[in-house]
Amino acid sequence: MNTGELVELGQQLRVDSVRAAAAAGSGHPTSSMSAADLMAVLFARHLRYDFDHPDHPGNDRFILSKGHASPLMYAVYKAVGAIGDEELLTFRKNGSRLEGHPTPRRLPWVETATGSLGQGLPVGVGIALAGKRPESADHRVWVLCGDSELAEGSVWEAAEQAAYEHLDNLTAIVDVNRLGQRGPTRHGHDLDAYARRFQAFGWHTVEVDGHDVDAVDRAYGEALSTKGQPTAILARTLKGKGVEAVQDREGLHGKPLPEAEDAIAELGGPRDLRIRVQAPSGSGTSGAGAPPAGNTTALELPRWDKGEEVATRNAFGEALAALGAARGDVVALDGEVGDSTRAEFFAKEHPERYFECYIAEQQMVAAAVGMAARGWVPYASTFAAFLTRAHDFVRMASISGSGLNLVGSHAGVAIGQDGPSQMGLEDLAMMRAVHGSTVLYPCDANQTARLVAAMAGLDGIRYLRTSRGESPVIYGPDEEFPVGGSKVLRSSGRDRLTLVAAGVTVPEALAAADALEGEGIAVRVIDLYSVKPVDRDTLRTAAEETGCLVTVEDHHPEGGLGDAVLDAFADGRPVPRLVRLAVRNMPGSASPDEQLHAAGIDAESIAAAGRLLVGEAIVS
Amino acid sequence: MNTGELVELGQQLRVDSVRAAAAAGSGHPTSSMSAADLMAVLFARHLRYDFDHPDHPGNDRFILSKGHASPLMYAVYKAVGAIGDEELLTFRKNGSRLEGHPTPRRLPWVETATGSLGQGLPVGVGIALAGKRPESADHRVWVLCGDSELAEGSVWEAAEQAAYEHLDNLTAIVDVNRLGQRGPTRHGHDLDAYARRFQAFGWHTVEVDGHDVDAVDRAYGEALSTKGQPTAILARTLKGKGVEAVQDREGLHGKPLPEAEDAIAELGGPRDLRIRVQAPSGSGTSGAGAPPAGNTTALELPRWDKGEEVATRNAFGEALAALGAARGDVVALDGEVGDSTRAEFFAKEHPERYFECYIAEQQMVAAAVGMAARGWVPYASTFAAFLTRAHDFVRMASISGSGLNLVGSHAGVAIGQDGPSQMGLEDLAMMRAVHGSTVLYPCDANQTARLVAAMAGLDGIRYLRTSRGESPVIYGPDEEFPVGGSKVLRSSGRDRLTLVAAGVTVPEALAAADALEGEGIAVRVIDLYSVKPVDRDTLRTAAEETGCLVTVEDHHPEGGLGDAVLDAFADGRPVPRLVRLAVRNMPGSASPDEQLHAAGIDAESIAAAGRLLVGEAIVS
Repeated sequence: MNTGELVELGQQLRVDSVRAAAAAGSGHPTSSMSAADLMAVLFARHLRYDFDHPDHPGNDRFILSKGHASPLMYAVYKAVGAIGDEELLTFRKNGSRLEGHPTPRRLPWVETATGSLGQGLPVGVGIALAGKRPESADHRVWVLCGDSELAEGSVWEAAEQAAYEHLDNLTAIVDVNRLGQRGPTRHGHDLDAYARRFQAFGWHTVEVDGHDVDAVDRAYGEALSTKGQPTAILARTLKGKGVEAVQDREGLHGKPLPEAEDAIAELGGPRDLRIRVQAPSGSGTSGAGAPPAGNTTALELPRWDKGEEVATRNAFGEALAALGAARGDVVALDGEVGDSTRAEFFAKEHPERYFECYIAEQQMVAAAVGMAARGWVPYASTFAAFLTRAHDFVRMASISGSGLNLVGSHAGVAIGQDGPSQMGLEDLAMMRAVHGSTVLYPCDANQTARLVAAMAGLDGIRYLRTSRGESPVIYGPDEEFPVGGSKVLRSSGRDRLTLVAAGVTVPEALAAADALEGEGIAVRVIDLYSVKPVDRDTLRTAAEETGCLVTVEDHHPEGGLGDAVLDAFADGRPVPRLVRLAVRNMPGSASPDEQLHAAGIDAESIAAAGRLLVGEAIVS
Repeated sequence: MNTGELVELGQQLRVDSVRAAAAAGSGHPTSSMSAADLMAVLFARHLRYDFDHPDHPGNDRFILSKGHASPLMYAVYKAVGAIGDEELLTFRKNGSRLEGHPTPRRLPWVETATGSLGQGLPVGVGIALAGKRPESADHRVWVLCGDSELAEGSVWEAAEQAAYEHLDNLTAIVDVNRLGQRGPTRHGHDLDAYARRFQAFGWHTVEVDGHDVDAVDRAYGEALSTKGQPTAILARTLKGKGVEAVQDREGLHGKPLPEAEDAIAELGGPRDLRIRVQAPSGSGTSGAGAPPAGNTTALELPRWDKGEEVATRNAFGEALAALGAARGDVVALDGEVGDSTRAEFFAKEHPERYFECYIAEQQMVAAAVGMAARGWVPYASTFAAFLTRAHDFVRMASISGSGLNLVGSHAGVAIGQDGPSQMGLEDLAMMRAVHGSTVLYPCDANQTARLVAAMAGLDGIRYLRTSRGESPVIYGPDEEFPVGGSKVLRSSGRDRLTLVAAGVTVPEALAAADALEGEGIAVRVIDLYSVKPVDRDTLRTAAEETGCLVTVEDHHPEGGLGDAVLDAFADGRPVPRLVRLAVRNMPGSASPDEQLHAAGIDAESIAAAGRLLVGEAIVS
């Protein structure tokens, strides 16, 4: 397309954005209009993409970080022929693929769900990183950012990683339209303010008039020819560009244009220009750049003998290294605590597939999302407590339908002296509440290893909780642990009570069962290693046969194991009487044993609760 | 103190750090040793603080952002006479105030709990902001940061706000010791790399040898004399400085020195220098700079008539503005969505106490923590979904014992067309799992207003969930809503079922009750506006009298209302049969009514569940 055609194309994208929002009665046309020329030039002149084969490994990748500008995205999809005009006008309607914010669950050309700002660039960095290192591919990543979202710290975590990793295959296009949702941004049209920041982090920058299609074309060319560093294109634009009634005006964010027909006329009316997008490099749907699928050699998990004392975090590290040897598509990321999480075991054996993300948990999870989007199987680890830092990224990953393995170490008060800032005590609640998630909490080394391997084959967000201290190996190395299952560790026909534990509370529950048995109280013990999905059948059987339950968890009382157990009884059937033991105090520094005791989740406390419950006393 | 004494003081702080960690058998002496000279000069020459009156409004404020360097902090406390040597050696022991990471719950001189990196500077910005604007005080804020933690995006959110707000009362001291936990940082000793970043964000910077006490002294002086912008002092230091066996070496993070006695000897042995800290400006424990306490005029909350249609977010905004008029100590912060959350109503009436934090939710919450530390009563608002971004800050605020009011708007699928990225569907789980939190979810305008006012007087983290769409006013303006209570909206001696709802599901539950009543099934309806603490008595009575419950919530099934209800039965007493209705699908775009129906939480779905339950059928 020549200059005149590109200008016309930009107007077409504006018109279609206005039309889509008008049909929906909601949406963000003004935020679309500012970036229309940027998109016209990118898709018509620079992006290489096969819309018929979105999985083509040679495809460039485009991310609409300012996800609310979805009308513009869908207008582009129409212009490239991926959707028709009729579908365009289903925007935001029940059942339409064209949601308020684009998601890959619905549309194959979307890399990652956006709509929570400041996430597109971080995920783009992950895709670009995969392209550089394990793939050695020549695809490029283009991310369209808003100016408002540069206030999110996650953008600067991304900027830091991108420059440090020399991601010259990454271009951020910033639509500096000066206006946020409720008014002007901090920096308005001061492109230099943004350029200084990107440059300081090591990026190449280009400042440009975002409505001058030739200048934009040259800027993209400059990005393509810049080697050794990523490029940020800072484009001065006007929100609502092209329609006098809304252009560069406040108070019009997220609203359809007041007089859509007039606006469309002012923009020159509908057009039907078609973009011919450049083909990706390479051919076919597999080959260069794609990660190898599945096992490449037989998986040989580490094995431990019963009675050994091993920390589950160590078992995680060893199992992950073994999984990495068996599967070429496994990658690992860590937040500068690989010596604690034991992700370093993987790093030593597979350095080319290990990504040190430093202390930037949001970026770590975002990079994992990006890699998963390219077909890699990422394991991202840090302290369970610090995964809270990335909660919004996990939430958005679940909306994307992304397949992530997240591993949180140093769970609970059992870490001991370091104190509450380092203790994951809300991670089970956070991860259980993620749509479609899997939550696993192993108690011994062999169980951990099996679950680390099983995670890789699941859908959605999978979370594994590991512990700092050593714990006894209670299962043999050939024992199997299906996700959604549990293990009944003690059982008899005389059981008057069931103890439900997981992780560090399993040995405590066994000790409590011993004590109670010695007093003539037979007790069932369930290791509920699969916190979500939960083993409803086993819990229901236990409830029917023993009548009452004690749940015990190294976690706050809300949202964790106790709640998971009750999920087995949320369908109207009789619910067993139960007592829930959990961490209700604010811990300080103390030894692990002192901590478990102070929280009331050690063997002694469990036995006491059991005695009261079978005596039918009310505990609190 | 002169140069020689300062050098000696630095060595004393090192010796005491080594001694404390040796006594504990754990801790971070090497991270303490790098910053010892920085702390010696600060506390001996520049900080103005009355250790006998930590609440003195004229006190400078010091934050140890690298909280793991707690041995150094405690060594300083000893040197200023705040604690004795005997207490120093209780470090990390059960019951000691000297935890692994310092917390204000235990120690009056600590402003905020640290230990999750990248949080100290953001909180310091909040304190400095309060000092600048509503307080017009001349106290200063000093924050000691590690170099590793500069990888956290939250640091750059803080840097952005600090420079934009011209916080020349804020100094960041960065202990650039080159080594993180598992190895070198990205930038090693490249002070320029950090200086460029801070400068780009608008800070004044000083680069200095962090072991040259005279140079450090001059750097602090330069910070004091810099006007109109905050200062970052980038100090080149050596981890483990002063002990050859550990100095500048990898693999020694978070470990006591291997040969403590030799190390102490190498450092010149124990000393007993005493720091005479400068007095704060002003006198007494109140006066200049302190926020006004409590109500300054009578509170006149907005009032609505029954039957009006009002969004609870609007009621929040109006009530907050009214509260701000009555109480001079209330401040409001928002993440650039004040027009949506309605925090803008407060902004219009009290601009001097309103803080626009732009799209930086971590910084918004951190600034609120800082203001709360100074005695202000902050309300921080954004979309409920985006509060997940600040989860780690909320977690740490609870460890601090901070009093925060957090308000999340646009909860649930009821927002309609915008789609899942904008829907808070895990916020109740997140906030319930915070230690000591309060979680409120009003269904009408008068209830909202009362709860907004009640929040201010509570301890800990208080969360209010508001809704986007209008809902009918069902309570009169004089109705009272105690925290921890509930409202029984329908009740009779014939009730065969209890519906438990909150927020947008209350009108749905009432409509379902009408439908069931018409079929001859009498139903109790409970408005559980206080999700935590939960009204155990009312729920237990309902369970006893009606036999079974249906809970219904616009939230994922995990960790929300359904789990809160079961919390009333977690002590061994009989548990009612129940069905839990919640959002189990992944929503797309659709109208609010379509969304509630698709999620199975509308009146029709509730009535269907009720019919099944009283028929004693199993639902799933």
